[in-house]
Amino acid sequence: MYSHPSQRSHHGPLHHSHSQSRQSYQNYGTAPPSYGGYGPPPNADPQLWRWFSTVDTDRSGQISLNELQAALVNGNWTKFDLDTVKMLMNMFDSDRSGTIGFNEFAGLWKYIADWQNVFRHFDRDGSGTIEGHELSEALRSFGYNLSPRLLQLVETKYAAGPTSGYAPPPGISFDRFVRACVVVKSLTEAFQQLDTDRDGWVQVSYQQFMEMFLRAP
Amino acid sequence: MYSHPSQRSHHGPLHHSHSQSRQSYQNYGTAPPSYGGYGPPPNADPQLWRWFSTVDTDRSGQISLNELQAALVNGNWTKFDLDTVKMLMNMFDSDRSGTIGFNEFAGLWKYIADWQNVFRHFDRDGSGTIEGHELSEALRSFGYNLSPRLLQLVETKYAAGPTSGYAPPPGISFDRFVRACVVVKSLTEAFQQLDTDRDGWVQVSYQQFMEMFLRAP
Repeated sequence: MYSHPSQRSHHGPLHHSHSQSRQSYQNYGTAPPSYGGYGPPPNADPQLWRWFSTVDTDRSGQISLNELQAALVNGNWTKFDLDTVKMLMNMFDSDRSGTIGFNEFAGLWKYIADWQNVFRHFDRDGSGTIEGHELSEALRSFGYNLSPRLLQLVETKYAAGPTSGYAPPPGISFDRFVRACVVVKSLTEAFQQLDTDRDGWVQVSYQQFMEMFLRAP
Repeated sequence: MYSHPSQRSHHGPLHHSHSQSRQSYQNYGTAPPSYGGYGPPPNADPQLWRWFSTVDTDRSGQISLNELQAALVNGNWTKFDLDTVKMLMNMFDSDRSGTIGFNEFAGLWKYIADWQNVFRHFDRDGSGTIEGHELSEALRSFGYNLSPRLLQLVETKYAAGPTSGYAPPPGISFDRFVRACVVVKSLTEAFQQLDTDRDGWVQVSYQQFMEMFLRAP
């Protein structure tokens, strides 16, 4: 059996949905600035523009996957996984251009900053990675009460290295922690959508089953 | 509905299983060579030892995740994804030491070489990446007749970049192609194990459902 996330649980940045981001930022417009040279759109937050133009290394007015991946590093200076960067772009590339414009960037940057706060909060020992018990506390606070076996599998799958019998597991870096949480949310919601009588069991076809997995980040 | 892989289909390296590798290499022993200095075990293939010692940059006699990731590059010189490297280590680290010894390396190296042949075979246009129709041909040849919608989702998920409305999809690099094929195999087999009456439908609990995904690479 699984417990449904309660209304009162703290979802933090997990509350983000693509449609929310589309709604929040659609009033900014999505075209890159085209007046004169390279510069911020009218009324842009100056600090946010500085960040954007630092990431937009070829000054095209649009952030590509490679530019975003080059800009995003974990606490230990490793680059974000391609899968995590693709997940972020899919969430915030509202106009499906394949790149992140300045107004899309505002939502992306806030989302990452929110997750950084969540990560720091649950990284109780300040190790820079999330260990098993920290992961379980984080997921529980989001309303996901996974069994010990599932928590172990999440930890093993998203850890920065292989689990050996001789050393403690290597912990989960920031990028993979975010991806793990979004995957648990995405799969749980996909399951709940089919579980209309809420008994913790669903009947699925091969097509549905594969789709649920392939749609998760 | 899904079709079950037929006996006659060409599975190539997909036939590998962890237990196979354990069986094939257990007679080699797993301890690193400890006689005198750094050198190959008795009767080692000299070429294989040269490859091993090139990857084992700290000359510890064991290949770590970081050493393996540093050694493995795609045709376009991008590094293999952490998830793919972890998948390979999990497949071939038979003694669960968290590292790859010389005898485990023999199996790993052959597995990668076999996949390189498969990749070159299906990369019909020699672009260095696998595009949608090449992917569908490869999966079909392994016995997986996925629907067009599932093929599209596999392509999107494992492509090297985001899909935009304006450009052709970026294609799947070698490391992600191997992972995609192993994931399709792993999920399909997990589904088939539950689908005892082979009607293409299964009843799963939340726990089973999540486990199936979390156990896939």
